[in-house]
Amino acid sequence: MTLTAADDSFASGLAALLPDNTLRRAEPRHLEEPRGRWTGVSRWIALPRSTEEAAIIMRHCNAARVGIVPLGGGTGLVGGQVAPEAPAPLILSLERMTAIRATYPEENVMIAEAGAVLVDVQGAATDAGRLFALSLASEGTARIGGLLATNAGGVNVLRYGNARDQVLGLEAVLPDGTVWNGLKRLRKDNTGYDLRHLLIGAEGTLGLITAAALKLSPVPAATGTALFTVPDPRAALGLLALVRSRLGEGISAFELISRQGLAFLAETIPDLRQPWDSPPDWCVLVDLGLARGLDPAAALEDIFAAAFEADLVSDGIVAQSQQQSQDFWAIRERIPEANRAIGAISSHDISVPLGRVPDFIAQAGPKLAALGAFRINCFGHLGDGNLHYNVFPLPGGDKADHQHQREDITRTVHDLVHSFGGSVSAEHGIGRLKVADLERYGDPAKLAAMRAIKAALDPNGIMNPGAVLRVR
Amino acid sequence: MTLTAADDSFASGLAALLPDNTLRRAEPRHLEEPRGRWTGVSRWIALPRSTEEAAIIMRHCNAARVGIVPLGGGTGLVGGQVAPEAPAPLILSLERMTAIRATYPEENVMIAEAGAVLVDVQGAATDAGRLFALSLASEGTARIGGLLATNAGGVNVLRYGNARDQVLGLEAVLPDGTVWNGLKRLRKDNTGYDLRHLLIGAEGTLGLITAAALKLSPVPAATGTALFTVPDPRAALGLLALVRSRLGEGISAFELISRQGLAFLAETIPDLRQPWDSPPDWCVLVDLGLARGLDPAAALEDIFAAAFEADLVSDGIVAQSQQQSQDFWAIRERIPEANRAIGAISSHDISVPLGRVPDFIAQAGPKLAALGAFRINCFGHLGDGNLHYNVFPLPGGDKADHQHQREDITRTVHDLVHSFGGSVSAEHGIGRLKVADLERYGDPAKLAAMRAIKAALDPNGIMNPGAVLRVR
Repeated sequence: MTLTAADDSFASGLAALLPDNTLRRAEPRHLEEPRGRWTGVSRWIALPRSTEEAAIIMRHCNAARVGIVPLGGGTGLVGGQVAPEAPAPLILSLERMTAIRATYPEENVMIAEAGAVLVDVQGAATDAGRLFALSLASEGTARIGGLLATNAGGVNVLRYGNARDQVLGLEAVLPDGTVWNGLKRLRKDNTGYDLRHLLIGAEGTLGLITAAALKLSPVPAATGTALFTVPDPRAALGLLALVRSRLGEGISAFELISRQGLAFLAETIPDLRQPWDSPPDWCVLVDLGLARGLDPAAALEDIFAAAFEADLVSDGIVAQSQQQSQDFWAIRERIPEANRAIGAISSHDISVPLGRVPDFIAQAGPKLAALGAFRINCFGHLGDGNLHYNVFPLPGGDKADHQHQREDITRTVHDLVHSFGGSVSAEHGIGRLKVADLERYGDPAKLAAMRAIKAALDPNGIMNPGAVLRVR
Repeated sequence: MTLTAADDSFASGLAALLPDNTLRRAEPRHLEEPRGRWTGVSRWIALPRSTEEAAIIMRHCNAARVGIVPLGGGTGLVGGQVAPEAPAPLILSLERMTAIRATYPEENVMIAEAGAVLVDVQGAATDAGRLFALSLASEGTARIGGLLATNAGGVNVLRYGNARDQVLGLEAVLPDGTVWNGLKRLRKDNTGYDLRHLLIGAEGTLGLITAAALKLSPVPAATGTALFTVPDPRAALGLLALVRSRLGEGISAFELISRQGLAFLAETIPDLRQPWDSPPDWCVLVDLGLARGLDPAAALEDIFAAAFEADLVSDGIVAQSQQQSQDFWAIRERIPEANRAIGAISSHDISVPLGRVPDFIAQAGPKLAALGAFRINCFGHLGDGNLHYNVFPLPGGDKADHQHQREDITRTVHDLVHSFGGSVSAEHGIGRLKVADLERYGDPAKLAAMRAIKAALDPNGIMNPGAVLRVR
């Protein structure tokens, strides 16, 4: 299972099988990832224009035992998109396969190629009078193939599910270069093992997704947004239950924001208006999308009244316009930007069972305080039990001075998450960053099954070597 | 990979490893399936009380190369629950593992063992003030393990998804007897391949599901039901789009009923009241579950008015009471009983892309008429594109007289479904009935991947031999 480098000689042999200009020298931008932890060693990138070309490339790589790193928008946060170790794999970019092949509004289905950028898919859905519900910070750059390969999350998971839940069918090239034509537009299809869900979330280690039949949703008749101040995370969960009991699926997002997050925003993005005189310790952004006949602003006022009565909220502001709703969302959406400006020592994308979130937050702080003095910005998708739990230096400090503590911090957070039955990668995946975490925290029977599946579907180990599973 | 029979000698050896009375002689009821096509040849049944006992059984079977047929409620319609060919496998029944291990209303999660009967799970959810959304005709007998192994469908898929969509985590015994502790209560967990979705729908061929972390949903604030007469299936789809544009996820079920179905009901269940003077050619049952602040009856009246204006409906009755709603549902739910009384020559559980349903219905009748004169009862889950398309003799005829046409009928229906990009098993699975269909219509790359996965996870081929994939 030793791989061979995609060197100049291999590239010229492969180029001869493909139209001109399908193979190019890799550029620096193909070898980078957002957090700057790894730099790819690949020398060549293939840019197929079609599934057939992608299949030729993969067949050739498989025969020559050359590794492949699939590349979408390159926005992944766990290093799944760059291979830093020799032998240099071929980068296989989907950036030329961006077509929306078909839209079926009456079926709530769209067929998109893997290279389509998420905002373009969202826009095509809007043009068809529908909603494509996947929404996340990198949507202007991230591509469908990478979003599915990593089972991306984002702000609407509470209502619409993860990326995998937006998919009815897939087209993919399997590691031996055969094409799976699985682009079914069916809501029900019980004919054999669910290869779709196996490839989704496999981070390119079991095959290359080339196109997807995506679920669209009706556009809610009316939307509304509010910021509610809550005394603590436990009360926030009570508020969530209250909203769901009244409005069911009508709640689209439920995002937690802490005073530390607001302070980072005030410090690094002073122009961003915050609608409080004194920032609350904890608040939640609630987003509704309701059926015809309901007024979201009125529903939010009613919820505030009931929640206030039950001591679940102490203050609340309901957006009175689309603009104000966007302003509220900007507070939530710009927290990562503020975090980058401050400079985290360590960032954690974790989830715990919803009912354990308050205990997790209560216990994680003191455990970290035992390691040193830090600032913690805990925020994110509370409705899904998914928190971004990021650890920063004290004011005036620099993350570089805390590098020696990083491993201990991560271990402390992840051990606590694991003790609560949580996940050390809620939405970002394993990539190369969390391979050791998966080995440490993963169920041994599941890990053994994963290795058996990898060996069965990719016996030469060419697909994204070193991602998810260690190369053996 | 030749298997060994679970004979008396094997059984006594296995019994010695387990508490008294865990192994018993198989009774006739363990060897039957609802359609009477197959009779099991097993002589022994194991009834573990715990996951640990199930693991001992499976380890022992794997070491001895003895096949295992997992048994839930035995309601499957494709023969997945009986092994008719020697060597006789051991039946592994989950009927003693029926505990609801825990309920977390604040998380909308319940942990149920695989032997729990669906109505009991629904009831436990109701007791917790929540809804477990899976609902189907056999819910009084079917057990969670079998429902998940077959990825069951039912009447609420339109709103809540298939059985797989109700599952956050699984506990399962893998074919080598190791236990996968995957009972996570997480909405987001991107740590490795999705073994959960691989076992769900694998019909017991890749492992034994022993427990599941099930998603619960809020109970809708108010529900309502209507029967709308539509001119044809195309208009029914227009009505569906209209309802979704107004009410989004508020539509829980959208079921198609034809005049033939109503005639079968009138003939075989004359006591069942039908609310029309003259039965319509086509009608749909619409079920709503709405948020607080909306009146389902009023919403249905408004929808009728708009749909009438658009020539999508010609008549409509909105249930004025819970009782009337149940009466409407009885019309839909008792069609299978009427079908059994008439006696189908051939039954088909198919799906096509939603927009192709009218063309499928329009073309299937004439194609079958070319084979002979039949009555067709086409009904079911139109909102999912899933039809039960059943073919019957003319009045006075007997299905026995048409046995020679059965294969041609099925081939004709399935070929047409396949030409529309549909599925020859929408919700019932492959079992033993449709193994040849899967080989005929399945994508070759997918089939090869399935065989590779089966060989990787169950190298001795002990799990449900002959189901889904042919024994080689």
